[in-house]
Amino acid sequence: MSDSLVAPTAAPARHLVSPSDLDLPLVESLLALASDMERQGQSPAQAPLRGRIMASVFYEPSTRTRFSFEAAMLRLGGQVISVESAATGSSAAKGESLEDAVRIIGGYADLIVLRHPEIGAAERAARVSPVPLVNAGDGAGHHPTQALLDLYTIKKECGRLDHLRIVMSGDLKFGRTARSLALLLARYPGNQLTLVSPDELRLGEDVRHQLHRTGVSIRDERDLSAAAAGADVLYQTRIQRERFASVTEYDQVRSVSRVDAALMRRLPEHAIVMHPLPRLDEIDESVDSDPRAAYFRQARNGLFVRMAVLYWLAMGT
Amino acid sequence: MSDSLVAPTAAPARHLVSPSDLDLPLVESLLALASDMERQGQSPAQAPLRGRIMASVFYEPSTRTRFSFEAAMLRLGGQVISVESAATGSSAAKGESLEDAVRIIGGYADLIVLRHPEIGAAERAARVSPVPLVNAGDGAGHHPTQALLDLYTIKKECGRLDHLRIVMSGDLKFGRTARSLALLLARYPGNQLTLVSPDELRLGEDVRHQLHRTGVSIRDERDLSAAAAGADVLYQTRIQRERFASVTEYDQVRSVSRVDAALMRRLPEHAIVMHPLPRLDEIDESVDSDPRAAYFRQARNGLFVRMAVLYWLAMGT
Amino acid sequence: MSDSLVAPTAAPARHLVSPSDLDLPLVESLLALASDMERQGQSPAQAPLRGRIMASVFYEPSTRTRFSFEAAMLRLGGQVISVESAATGSSAAKGESLEDAVRIIGGYADLIVLRHPEIGAAERAARVSPVPLVNAGDGAGHHPTQALLDLYTIKKECGRLDHLRIVMSGDLKFGRTARSLALLLARYPGNQLTLVSPDELRLGEDVRHQLHRTGVSIRDERDLSAAAAGADVLYQTRIQRERFASVTEYDQVRSVSRVDAALMRRLPEHAIVMHPLPRLDEIDESVDSDPRAAYFRQARNGLFVRMAVLYWLAMGT
Repeated sequence: MSDSLVAPTAAPARHLVSPSDLDLPLVESLLALASDMERQGQSPAQAPLRGRIMASVFYEPSTRTRFSFEAAMLRLGGQVISVESAATGSSAAKGESLEDAVRIIGGYADLIVLRHPEIGAAERAARVSPVPLVNAGDGAGHHPTQALLDLYTIKKECGRLDHLRIVMSGDLKFGRTARSLALLLARYPGNQLTLVSPDELRLGEDVRHQLHRTGVSIRDERDLSAAAAGADVLYQTRIQRERFASVTEYDQVRSVSRVDAALMRRLPEHAIVMHPLPRLDEIDESVDSDPRAAYFRQARNGLFVRMAVLYWLAMGT
Repeated sequence: MSDSLVAPTAAPARHLVSPSDLDLPLVESLLALASDMERQGQSPAQAPLRGRIMASVFYEPSTRTRFSFEAAMLRLGGQVISVESAATGSSAAKGESLEDAVRIIGGYADLIVLRHPEIGAAERAARVSPVPLVNAGDGAGHHPTQALLDLYTIKKECGRLDHLRIVMSGDLKFGRTARSLALLLARYPGNQLTLVSPDELRLGEDVRHQLHRTGVSIRDERDLSAAAAGADVLYQTRIQRERFASVTEYDQVRSVSRVDAALMRRLPEHAIVMHPLPRLDEIDESVDSDPRAAYFRQARNGLFVRMAVLYWLAMGT
Repeated sequence: MSDSLVAPTAAPARHLVSPSDLDLPLVESLLALASDMERQGQSPAQAPLRGRIMASVFYEPSTRTRFSFEAAMLRLGGQVISVESAATGSSAAKGESLEDAVRIIGGYADLIVLRHPEIGAAERAARVSPVPLVNAGDGAGHHPTQALLDLYTIKKECGRLDHLRIVMSGDLKFGRTARSLALLLARYPGNQLTLVSPDELRLGEDVRHQLHRTGVSIRDERDLSAAAAGADVLYQTRIQRERFASVTEYDQVRSVSRVDAALMRRLPEHAIVMHPLPRLDEIDESVDSDPRAAYFRQARNGLFVRMAVLYWLAMGT
């Protein structure tokens, strides 16, 4: 028996599983790093991750998230191995545990990006991964780089992360993006959250409790139009049909919470509209050409934020 | 709100959606560029697209077309992100529009190669894409790089693109490759087209009309063997079972339009046999070893033609 | 008609289809090369395969095997094009032959790694491939790089490949890995094989016959615990439910052939436990932390062995 190790790295690997892995100084330094990445252009000549391999391990397909991570890795000079639908791969089908898969893939790659439909999957995977692992979404759990790119977008578009009036609209109960963003924004002073959602999709009491302890101001509002009139940021999210008993109910909810030309007339000139995407009709296409429509810029910011995260994880400093 | 743009490029991006985007000077210059690519070997030392990323976005799988584009990009020194089955990816399944997907992917990649089952999809995508987009097939619509590689093959194998006798056989109604090639060849002087197809699969009147206006000579012929005897190029295509009411009818049509040893005895020594591939039994395997069988060389030419197209789109000159 | 060739290479390409392609000197030289690869670190600065493209063509998904080959190619400085589920790609679905697919892909790539569910598929593919081809598993057929990595692991962990007592347990009838390893080990002097398997899954008479001719010592044993007590290497394999008439029978077989804490107490201190993975419960998770558990190190060795194989195939020397 040799004395070689399972893990190719000596020190325990760092991971990014949930927004709670991100304390305020780390958030600030990642946002600054992302800003550097953007300023340097998309292909830093130095290729700092040359010779490193990132494994994209997606147990459910998510083309945009996968592309964003992979483009980030390639722009840093690294390389990528990728599975777009790992659940149908033979080993998972044969009953192999996620833990075993991660241990093995961690022997081939230097970084793992994991997407999994089960809440808590990334936490389990990170516990055994011999290399740094990023959670790219685990069901109703976390998706920390989405939260980071939302922060990055607000900072870049509004110039600050404090003393903002943020309106969150749509599914605040099941949608993890709005929930994560609310918790991160609550760390900064003077932010006011206005929540607009149907009763069925109200922000959960547990999150409200966490938010109240931070001292952030929270207000519920029925009327999106009234809320929008006082917003710096309008964060719209998708409402899924499955959440409602009937199509009638679903259609009614959607009709009162759409972002359309009329609503944009109420929104201040300096404000922005965000959306984690994909969107259906909760933002009308006519809004796309409005300069306040920030959602495609927001998606693109994911590239710079993920470059920053991969760099930080890989360089281990 | 910042003043940054959705699109990362300043000038409007150029695209390649249909053969009508290719005027004669452009065709000539792309064919010359492809020839350079082939002569330089497959890996030009200069890696002109180093630092660029191409996104392969395939809403229906087509391994060969995808591989051909991706190998072309890699041989130019670029990198690739790829989805082999985007239709089952979560965002499309959630109802995201093709336009939104292209806007977002265009924020991560520098070039998009799109395959989509719907006619007109590439046109719609190109209208919103912030980066150059190539149509790699949109249903019964267009597949312009296939048409280009057919031209490249004829020029390389026959030494010219004019004063040729071209026999087209098989499905000339639904098969887009023969149709596109016919329209491109009609631009060159002195070409004679002989069309051999069952009544159900005759070249459409609209295309015939377009061809007649160019002054190209067209002739219909029932007997493939008779037609082959006078050919410089025999362009065979696949006939799909779905086109016929009964298997008997289908089998009968196929039996009279096969390229086999007997047919090859009728074909002139200097002629070539082409096929867009995949082939079933419309060309007998015994023909493969005949030096006039050009279809595998034709497939390989796709690499050089796609290198030329990607270079032209990316360099924007 | 031009005189260009179908194949881009002048000399016939070399392939790795079955362990019988590997004579003893070649095995030794590949193991030495793999050891060099491991010693140099995972990213040899010289990038010997820069500018080469490997095509991963998987007609059935096998994420781990694919990742291992792709990481190996990337660490050698090469690039990869990849299909994780070629059987659902349009050309195979349209009825294109494997031979045609390989001829075409061999026009784009410099190396092909093929996984296919049908026994003999790799042999057929290699006969027409214009570029070197590696068999990454063809159904119940061969998987020669798995056999090589098993040898590499034993040599590295035990210091030698001869005069070893190897216990093989589990499905020795259908499992190709144990069978291939047995045949390779029989080429070295003084090895003793102990076979532990239920009657339904006994090593086939044909393989026994081949082994007997080499003069290797073979012994059947009912009791895994007794066998383990005298082992240098315990090679455990997975037993599939489909092999048994009833679940009761299946459960009974599994319960007597598990590697667990009790069994590890019988295993000598210097011995190792191997498994081709994926594992279900035939090795208890509590064993993972035992330093004699070599199976994750074994999986990782696949990287170095495949680097050696790709290098040997591509350099053609």
